[in-house]
Amino acid sequence: MKVQSSSEFKLQREVEYGTPEQNQTVKEIVAAIKKEGDTALLRYTERFDGVTLTPDALRVTPKELEAAYSRVEESFVTAIRAAAVNIRSFHARQKRNSWMDLQPDGTILGQIIRPLKRVGVYVPGGKAAYPSSVLMNVIPAQIAGVPEIVMVTPPATGGKAGIDPYILVAAAEAGVHEIYRVGGAQAIAALAFGTESIEPVDKICGPGNIYVALAKREVYGAVDIDSIAGPSEIVVLADDSAEPGYVAADLLSQAEHDEMASAILVTPSHELAYAVAAEVERQLLELPRQSIARASVEAYGAIIIVEDIEEGISVVNRLAPEHLEIVTADPMGLLGSIENAGAIFLGPYSSEPVGDYFAGPNHIIPTNGTARFSSPVDVDDFIKKSSLIYYSKEALLRDGHSIIELARREGLEGHARAIEIRLENEGKGGDSHGEQ
Amino acid sequence: MKVQSSSEFKLQREVEYGTPEQNQTVKEIVAAIKKEGDTALLRYTERFDGVTLTPDALRVTPKELEAAYSRVEESFVTAIRAAAVNIRSFHARQKRNSWMDLQPDGTILGQIIRPLKRVGVYVPGGKAAYPSSVLMNVIPAQIAGVPEIVMVTPPATGGKAGIDPYILVAAAEAGVHEIYRVGGAQAIAALAFGTESIEPVDKICGPGNIYVALAKREVYGAVDIDSIAGPSEIVVLADDSAEPGYVAADLLSQAEHDEMASAILVTPSHELAYAVAAEVERQLLELPRQSIARASVEAYGAIIIVEDIEEGISVVNRLAPEHLEIVTADPMGLLGSIENAGAIFLGPYSSEPVGDYFAGPNHIIPTNGTARFSSPVDVDDFIKKSSLIYYSKEALLRDGHSIIELARREGLEGHARAIEIRLENEGKGGDSHGEQ
Repeated sequence: MKVQSSSEFKLQREVEYGTPEQNQTVKEIVAAIKKEGDTALLRYTERFDGVTLTPDALRVTPKELEAAYSRVEESFVTAIRAAAVNIRSFHARQKRNSWMDLQPDGTILGQIIRPLKRVGVYVPGGKAAYPSSVLMNVIPAQIAGVPEIVMVTPPATGGKAGIDPYILVAAAEAGVHEIYRVGGAQAIAALAFGTESIEPVDKICGPGNIYVALAKREVYGAVDIDSIAGPSEIVVLADDSAEPGYVAADLLSQAEHDEMASAILVTPSHELAYAVAAEVERQLLELPRQSIARASVEAYGAIIIVEDIEEGISVVNRLAPEHLEIVTADPMGLLGSIENAGAIFLGPYSSEPVGDYFAGPNHIIPTNGTARFSSPVDVDDFIKKSSLIYYSKEALLRDGHSIIELARREGLEGHARAIEIRLENEGKGGDSHGEQ
Repeated sequence: MKVQSSSEFKLQREVEYGTPEQNQTVKEIVAAIKKEGDTALLRYTERFDGVTLTPDALRVTPKELEAAYSRVEESFVTAIRAAAVNIRSFHARQKRNSWMDLQPDGTILGQIIRPLKRVGVYVPGGKAAYPSSVLMNVIPAQIAGVPEIVMVTPPATGGKAGIDPYILVAAAEAGVHEIYRVGGAQAIAALAFGTESIEPVDKICGPGNIYVALAKREVYGAVDIDSIAGPSEIVVLADDSAEPGYVAADLLSQAEHDEMASAILVTPSHELAYAVAAEVERQLLELPRQSIARASVEAYGAIIIVEDIEEGISVVNRLAPEHLEIVTADPMGLLGSIENAGAIFLGPYSSEPVGDYFAGPNHIIPTNGTARFSSPVDVDDFIKKSSLIYYSKEALLRDGHSIIELARREGLEGHARAIEIRLENEGKGGDSHGEQ
């Protein structure tokens, strides 16, 4: 890993928008599903997944869900249950109530908070089939109160027929019982517009390949979508107190995700910088995903030496990383200065995988510097708010003239008259506050 | 206005995505601003607004802001101040605190809530220059704690040189003091990427014409944007208790916005239906914006007769209107059944303009049926959240094996090792809970 000064360092960021051909393919798939429904859905499933299905075989049966349990280890079920408890407990604290402001004149203003009605979760097949992501997408929606949560996932996993049993167990543990074996852009279109077999949803979330991402962009507006995730990132801000072996392991746990992942150490300590660089080399050699991690470290990794922790903080705020670890003598003391970071891990024991799998906060976190203006997935992503206005007669008689004034200044006479007709009718005699 | 049954009624909805030429123009403008900064910004301002500026004339001076007050009526200042008080008071109730969950083992989990750092508000020129929209965009950002709020608006208003003084007064009353006289796609690009004169922002909000909307789409990702608003909509759900003149006036206040606005009455009462139809005709004749309102009513207006209020509610939920008025004998009794509506106005005195200008809730509300999954603008639109994980040694030693189990099932050995290296080091001897 290259050690460099903060002035030498230049962040490489790339966003994939797909080729014109990929965009065209996705447009065609979405249009076909919208027009032909199940017929197109089954045709694309045959073409892209090599699996021939009838409409009534689209939905995963309760029996299959049950059978999945016999195909996974007991220790996995125990671990994912413990993770689910923590994720539920953390997200339950985010739930908000509808509220009202009752005014003495009888006016009531408020905000009504309701869950979305139906949410679709995409779960990729193949190597990117992560049971933990099932929990991270489903549980916040459940806590929000979404009554219908539906999952789609390709009918084959990494060349093998059938859905990964770990995914099915994670779905069952999360409480999802409506699962369809469809994937790709065709699954996204089916969720957005519905087919004979799949009812349309209000929001689609979950990661996927470039076709899935492009399809989500394409259907956005008809339904809501979550953000399109970029490659994963970690920045570790550390001082002399950090253990080089831990820092190197955490950097590599990010780098092994994919060749475009970015792992960066920011430190004022020359000693730590070179010790971590050596540890990274040493640990890399033993990693099963060595070639991915090495490519990531070489292209997007960096060890940046800064003047002091203050300069380190300003580098962090500029990077606005998805994951930030602060491993210094007093990490809480720096928390107030962090402006931009999706998830902040403090101290030597808050290794990033603790958050990826277990602690409770969501692992779907803004990437690519978007932590500047966006947030990890939470319960708020699965609710909608309505404003409530119950104006009293007294309030309208009192405020009507100001409302008319503002409407007329904007040239909206119809707005002014909607108030005026009431003042004229109710103001004289109808006003219970008028003198007799 | 045509009276029809709910089965006859078909909602017309259109979304404007711009012509290929408009899209091309916007792409060119954005690229030029990104590359040339002020030079391009001034060139486009000359070309599109017919105003020649030097870089140091871009920013509106304190003197101009002051002078604007002498060009507006005292009654306007009084009214907009009263509105600002209400809007502030309503939005202040939305502010949330960062929170922590302190666990007995020393672990701390939480969510940190911070304001965005810098927000840009676009204010259109010409006839769409609405002082009320300045308040509705700026105040939630202020309440969120955004330290830098900057406004852009075209240098000429409806053929006249100079910015509308009502807009400037609204900005000053809202507390915005950084204002640039630039508009169109070039202003959006300048906010997103910055120029020599204008620092880049984290989020851009505010309405605009098709070029502004396309430019916002184009820069999304580099910065956050608010939603792209469609034409305005109102649905009135009313029974016999409603006053036909009030209902007609409220429908027309929506219809006068633009030819594509939609005003719909849903009622089980034949009597009310025909009385409102007659009132709409009568009131239309007296409206200054009669031709706009008439076009809207004819193309997108409807009076829908339903079997009963329950069927009316299901029509409302299907429409998911931006504005919903419930004018029935007991409107609060129906509130629980409304699933989809951006803003809900209850009772005879909650005329929609009360909410447009004055009551306090935001008037920027999801259109085009998107109330199914999105919400009026509020303080949440100007904050970002960071997850906080401070895991204790005790917790890591307790949970480490579950985390390793989950990581290995996902094939992410690097994740497992980041935990394992700590368990190996700290577990033996380092574990204060170990037996001596």
